[in-house]
Order: sequence, then C-alpha cells, then structure tokens
Amino acid sequence: MSSAEQTYDVVVLGAGSTGENVADVVVRGGLSAVLVEEHLVGGECSYYACMPSKALLRGTEALEEARAVQGAAAAVTGEQDVAATLERRDSFTHDWDDSSQVGWVEGAGIGLLRGTARLDGERTVVVTGPDGATTRLTARHAVAVCTGSEAAVPPVDGLPDVQPWTPREATSAKEAPRRLLVVGGGYVGCEMSFAWNALGSQVTLFQRGDRLLPAAEPQAGDAVAASLRDHGVDVRLGAHVSAARRDGDEVVLTVDGGEVRGDEVLVAVGRRARTTAIGVDTVGLEPGEYLDVDDTLQVRGLSWLYGVGDVNGRRQLTHMGKYQARQAGAAIVARARGEEVSGADWSPHAATADHAATPSVVFTLPQVASVGLTSAQARERGLPHRVVEHPIGSVAGASLFADGYEGTAIAVVDTRREVLLGVTFVGPAVAELLHAATVAVVGEVPIARLWHAVPAYPTVSEIWLRLLEAWRG
Amino acid sequence: MSSAEQTYDVVVLGAGSTGENVADVVVRGGLSAVLVEEHLVGGECSYYACMPSKALLRGTEALEEARAVQGAAAAVTGEQDVAATLERRDSFTHDWDDSSQVGWVEGAGIGLLRGTARLDGERTVVVTGPDGATTRLTARHAVAVCTGSEAAVPPVDGLPDVQPWTPREATSAKEAPRRLLVVGGGYVGCEMSFAWNALGSQVTLFQRGDRLLPAAEPQAGDAVAASLRDHGVDVRLGAHVSAARRDGDEVVLTVDGGEVRGDEVLVAVGRRARTTAIGVDTVGLEPGEYLDVDDTLQVRGLSWLYGVGDVNGRRQLTHMGKYQARQAGAAIVARARGEEVSGADWSPHAATADHAATPSVVFTLPQVASVGLTSAQARERGLPHRVVEHPIGSVAGASLFADGYEGTAIAVVDTRREVLLGVTFVGPAVAELLHAATVAVVGEVPIARLWHAVPAYPTVSEIWLRLLEAWRG
Repeated sequence: MSSAEQTYDVVVLGAGSTGENVADVVVRGGLSAVLVEEHLVGGECSYYACMPSKALLRGTEALEEARAVQGAAAAVTGEQDVAATLERRDSFTHDWDDSSQVGWVEGAGIGLLRGTARLDGERTVVVTGPDGATTRLTARHAVAVCTGSEAAVPPVDGLPDVQPWTPREATSAKEAPRRLLVVGGGYVGCEMSFAWNALGSQVTLFQRGDRLLPAAEPQAGDAVAASLRDHGVDVRLGAHVSAARRDGDEVVLTVDGGEVRGDEVLVAVGRRARTTAIGVDTVGLEPGEYLDVDDTLQVRGLSWLYGVGDVNGRRQLTHMGKYQARQAGAAIVARARGEEVSGADWSPHAATADHAATPSVVFTLPQVASVGLTSAQARERGLPHRVVEHPIGSVAGASLFADGYEGTAIAVVDTRREVLLGVTFVGPAVAELLHAATVAVVGEVPIARLWHAVPAYPTVSEIWLRLLEAWRG
Repeated sequence: MSSAEQTYDVVVLGAGSTGENVADVVVRGGLSAVLVEEHLVGGECSYYACMPSKALLRGTEALEEARAVQGAAAAVTGEQDVAATLERRDSFTHDWDDSSQVGWVEGAGIGLLRGTARLDGERTVVVTGPDGATTRLTARHAVAVCTGSEAAVPPVDGLPDVQPWTPREATSAKEAPRRLLVVGGGYVGCEMSFAWNALGSQVTLFQRGDRLLPAAEPQAGDAVAASLRDHGVDVRLGAHVSAARRDGDEVVLTVDGGEVRGDEVLVAVGRRARTTAIGVDTVGLEPGEYLDVDDTLQVRGLSWLYGVGDVNGRRQLTHMGKYQARQAGAAIVARARGEEVSGADWSPHAATADHAATPSVVFTLPQVASVGLTSAQARERGLPHRVVEHPIGSVAGASLFADGYEGTAIAVVDTRREVLLGVTFVGPAVAELLHAATVAVVGEVPIARLWHAVPAYPTVSEIWLRLLEAWRG
C-alpha cells in the first residue's frame, strides 16, 4: 500500500461544522490546515441533526400558527403534504451529498483528506484512506480534535439487537413509521415526537425521570408534555424500559414490567465522545473519554492538542461548537505567532459563553429557548439571585400573534450585580426572542440600563417590559 | 351649571397609554393623580392604531408564512375569512368600548374625569364635562400634557370635503372598500395598503417622494414597494396629488394632472400636535405647536409642566410614549420628594433612547424593524461609522423558515467606540429580531463582546454572526 507524508500548521480531525470553522479561522490567520473526514463533510448537524429535524418540524409549526389566527384559520382546510415535507427535508441535507461543502472547503484554501484518522504520538496523525493508502500528517503547531459525539445506547437488555433508530435515522427516515416508540425525553426525543406525530406516526414517548427536558426550567418540560399529549402523543413519565426484542416486523419493549409494541424505536438518551478509535491512547489519554480542555480549548497537559466541539463534552450544540472553533482557532493563530493568549473571561481566545451564556432552542410546540443559568444552576453555584416570571400570553403582541397564546418567560437575576444570569422563554415561536437575552447576559447589561431598551409595540418582545416590572415588584 | 374644585399632586391631560403610564408611575411613587379624557380611555393605540392595524394584518402574514413552506402550503387551500378577521380586529378594540381600561385606572388608584381639559394658567386645568359642568383642577406638583397627536391633512384642494379616511377610519372600517386610494407612503400607508389589499380592496398607493418609508434605510422602502406590487397594489412613486372631489359615491383625485377614481381615500401623511384647544396660550405657549421639552420631558421654561408622548413630537410611537411616561413619572416623583433629577444620558429620569435607541417595526410583508441611527443619520451627525450589510436569506434559519426567504440586515457601527449605532432588518417576521439590537445599542455592548453572544442554530438570529463577520471583513 502506498504511503505519504505531509506537514501542515494545523491538522483538524473531523470536518463537521466545528472542524470546518477551526480550519477556516487558522487559514484566515495565515496558517495552513488540513481537514480529515471519514464520512460527510459538513458533519452531523447538516445531515442528521439540526437541519433535517427543523425541516421536519417547520411545516407543522407554520400551519399551527395559521390555525391559531381567527380569519386565517378558515384558509387552512387541507392537510400537510407529508411527501412534500420529506422532500423539503431532503433538499436541506442535499440528499446526503456533501459536494457543496467540499467546494466551500476548497474555496477556503483548506486541505481535505478522506479517511480515518488516528493520533500517533505528539503532533502526528495517520490517515487511512478508503483505498487503504496511508498518509502521515505532521502538525507544526496544533492538532484539533473535532470528531464530535455519537448517540449513546443505554444498557437495556436486547436493545442493540433490535436496530433502534438513533437521531440519525429519526431525521433521515424516508417515511413515517405507523407506531414510533421514543426512548428519552430530552430535546431530541421531544422534537422527533412532535415531528413524526404530525407526519402520521402514532408516537409513545418514554422518559425515565418525572419530567421532560430535565435540564431546562421545570415550566418548559411541563408545557411540552402537556402539548405533546394535546397533539395525541402518549407521554409516559417515570417509565423504566428494561428490555427490547423484535417480533417479526414489530419491536417490543418491556416497560415497567408490561410490553409495548411499535414499528420503530428511537433511542435518544444522550451522547458519548467520539474518542474511542482515534489513537488518543498514543498521547496518554483514555479512549472513550471526553477531552479535558481549558477555556482556550487546549487539552490540559498537551499544549499542541485541542479538543473542540462535542468531543470535549462542554456544550454539545452546533452553534457552541462553531463558537469554540472561533475561539480555539484564534488561540492557535496567536500562539503560532508567539502572541499572548488569554483564557480570561470574554477574551477573544476563551469560550466563556460555555459557562455563562450558552443559548439553546428546543423546536417543539411550544418552543423552549434559554440562555445562561437556570434557577437551579444559580442555586447550585450559590449565586445571590432572584427569579422573576411572567406569562407571555398577557402581552399584546402575543395575543395578536395567536389566539389563546400560552407561554412563560423566566429571568434569573443576579441580586448583587443586578444583571441577568439567565432567561428562559417557553411558548410558540419564541426562538427569535432569545438573542436579546443572550446579548443582555453576555454584555452584562445592568437592569437599570435595560429599562431604556424599549420593546417595539406590539411585538412579543414586550414581555421584556413585564419581566422588568416583575423584577421591580 | 355646577362647578367644583379639586386638587391633585399631578394632573394628566389625556388617558392614552402615555397618560395612563404617567399617572401609574406617580401614583406608585406615592402621589395622587387624575386623568382627564374626552374620548376613550386607552387612547389612539388601543382603538385606532397599533392594535387594530396589526390585527388586520396578522392573518395575512400567518397564511403567507404557511404558504412559503413546501409541504405546509398544500394545506392552505382556502381563503382568509374576511368577516372573521374583522371580527377578530373588533375583539382587540373591545368594539371601541373602554370599560376594561376604566377598570384598570380605578384599580390603580388613579382619578378619572371625563371631559375636555384646558390649561388656565400655572398648575391649573379646567375640565368641562359632557353635561357642561366644570371642574377646576389644581396640580400641586405637575401637569402632564399627554394629548397626543392627530392625523395631519395636507393642503390638497378639496381634500377635507371628500371626508377622507384618516388612520382611524382605515383601522376601524367595517368592510373593505372596492377601490382604496392611499395618499402617503409612510408606515401607515404601507401597512394599510397591505391589509386592505389582502382583505379584498384594489389599492393604489401614492407617494410624493421617490421611495416608500423615507425615514428608513433605503433597502426597506425598496423591498416594501416591490412586495406591494407583487401583491397587486398599484404603487405610484413621485406622485403629486393636487385635488380631490366626490362624484356620487366615488372619490376622484387629481394626480399629476390625470384623474384617479376610488371608493375611499386614506390620507396618511403625518401627524400634528394636539395642542390647539388645550389652553397652552394661557401659559405663554403657541397653540398647535409641539411642546418643547428637555430629556426629563419637562417643558422648557415651565418647571411644573411636562409634555409626554406624541405631543412633544420627539418620537411618535406608542412604546416610546410609554417609555417617556416612565421617565417623566420618575422625574416628577423625584422632584416632588426634593430629590436630585438627572437629565444625563441613560439616567432613570431621562428619555435618552429617544435620541439613541428608538425601535420601530413596520408590519408590512416584508417587515421592517429598526433601532438607533440609520446610515444617513450617522452621516448627518458626523459620527465616524461603517455600514455592514448581509442578506438574511443566506442564513440556515431563514431558509428553514420560508422557502425563498428574502431579507437584508444592515448594521451601522461606530468605528471609534466599536459599538453599534443602529440596526435595520428587512424581511419576513423580523419584528422579534429587533430587541437583540435594541439591547446591544442601549447597552453599548462592544463588538468584541458581541462575538460571545452566540445565536442559537438554526434560527434567523444567526444573521448576527454574518454581520459580525462582515464587520471583521
């Protein structure tokens, strides 16, 4: 087999959105970089996560919004065209063809190697291509591991043998199963329950704990559970799935001692690091573990190694991977130039928002949009704080948006510094309300100043005024 | 006729949302207050402006959004039920009955007098009730004039005699005229053209200048004009309306020498101060003029008199009237207590956002949402600045939101302080994107910090990242 050697300033393992952004930043900074990818350039988000899942949901949301407006509702007399929705989903994933992403990589002046990558000691990566040829890559300055994460499969007897759907199959399925069983009530389980229920499946959702979306403010999981049930999803909280088997075309789960039958089962119970087969043992790290990094995304103890995105376990969200990529890329460039790099809060090299201001949106009906600390997190961190809450439906803009609008806004305020620690919105179409909260948290804008940030009337954003009034008391 | 005398700490002329808020703030501050109102408590916004106009538009918007999503579009097979939309509009205006507002005033511990109010020298207001009885009100601390504005009628020959629609009639009409002529291409003319066109009227819009929405960034007016035309509205720019007359049931306008016929004509060419008949001459001011106030909303030269909301001509928007009311109310309370009042920027007594961060949303299709300075205003003020722009449709969240999404984001950046001076969004459903910009402008959040304000993927808010990249270059 042929073998080659190549040297780059920066070698990036994994060409998902995180890896692409690390490479882009360092190339803009004057360094050379190569991406190594064994599957699709563009990564999980483009093909199996954010884009297809939101595409599956958007039509359902748009119709629900139109039906909620008296006068407009009369025009929504037909049904969603499921085939057309799936076709639209496929258009976003480019039918799982990555040529447009490859074109972007080439245009950005970034190298690309197809194949599996393994670290082989300091600054060295061995790539085995699809034809078995190997390339030995040497990194002058840094190796950035951006291999991401994969779906975890819980230790349920027989589960691996029933070929369960992971989020990949749930977002790429070509038709709605008649009966879909969903194990896991986090954001993936909730979003996919809404999506496939609306596209024709009879959905049963099993959540081991007593609440959906357990990381969010409790109002979020309660509202989503109530809405799932209103939409016809069978939501079972406190459900213990202990075994799985196939019976002909059916999948059979043992749940709390009884049996539940379906046609497919989606398992969405979290992620695990993709570090099992990338040679981290050759540099003294434990395969399968998340990479332990500092705020500049540098692996502790290995100054040439960076762990960026899902693979470090800090914040497993596309936008946070890209954010970390910008910060890590800036740190790599600065260190290559011999410039000082600061890991201090809000420095251009530090991923401070990972701790203080991570936004996330759950695209359910209602949506859940949150940033910063929840009240539980503020309590755990021992921060002096007060929680204020107000129903969004009481705002003129919300009542115009939809008849009977129901939602909640929750703000966690630092009582010492009088700044926002976190904000959660639960309600229809709240996704775009979130960035105002993110700017306020990141900017540490004092509450006294926020009174001057007037929401335009009559928008849903007027909820900000209600939150300030609730804070004032 | 009977006559009475009453004394309050604060006398408020006009019980629109501005007057209500002044009274509410001073009563919360421990002062007594009375509102004087000759028409409906709640004011223009509730009955004739924001609420009904947005209610007329919302159904059209919701249907357009559903039709823009392949798969969902198939379900929108019917037509908007115009009668149901008008009925929904009426529900927001409570059929022009103000009893719920009156209940709020009473519950807030605010006095209410029905009748016309005239200043009669310092701290004195004479109210003539519907039965002709007069009440002489004395204000211990302040008189706040919140009488607002009314539609201006341009000097067009014969126009007053054809009984043109003002914005009041345009928002409260019980049916769509067959042919509606609209004079004026500001936000009222544009919104009402969209609304009535969608509800069945054949609309012709005349704008004297060469662009709609002339106060906004030029991209806004261009996009709205193009969309109005796509929707079937006859938009005539550079049109000079010189005469009007009735011919039977028809209204006939002379435009650029030719005649145009319609069934109704809406005149929306601006506002004028409601100061003609309120006795400002008894305190040395000119009737019909806007009240000249400082940043605490105090009339210059008359320390006991405040002009709040539309009547001062600073910012004629409901939310800014309410904002001014909070600032003026705080100033009145502080001065009554002998406390220091500061008119400095961003003080709790100053309406600084009037100059620096006034948000506004035009609820057209596409919407236009803007805050702070436009590029033209930054140029006029001689501020060092750079303008960056990016198409919103290129953002993943926008392409998910609607097939073929078209929009533009424009940021005006202060190149010396590296903060945002103003932002404009043009595009479908951009109204809720605006508050993030308002917080950034008001909070004077440095661009370097804004890089840490990560937009959630895939939302339309990701446009923020594109703007930062455009700024970085």
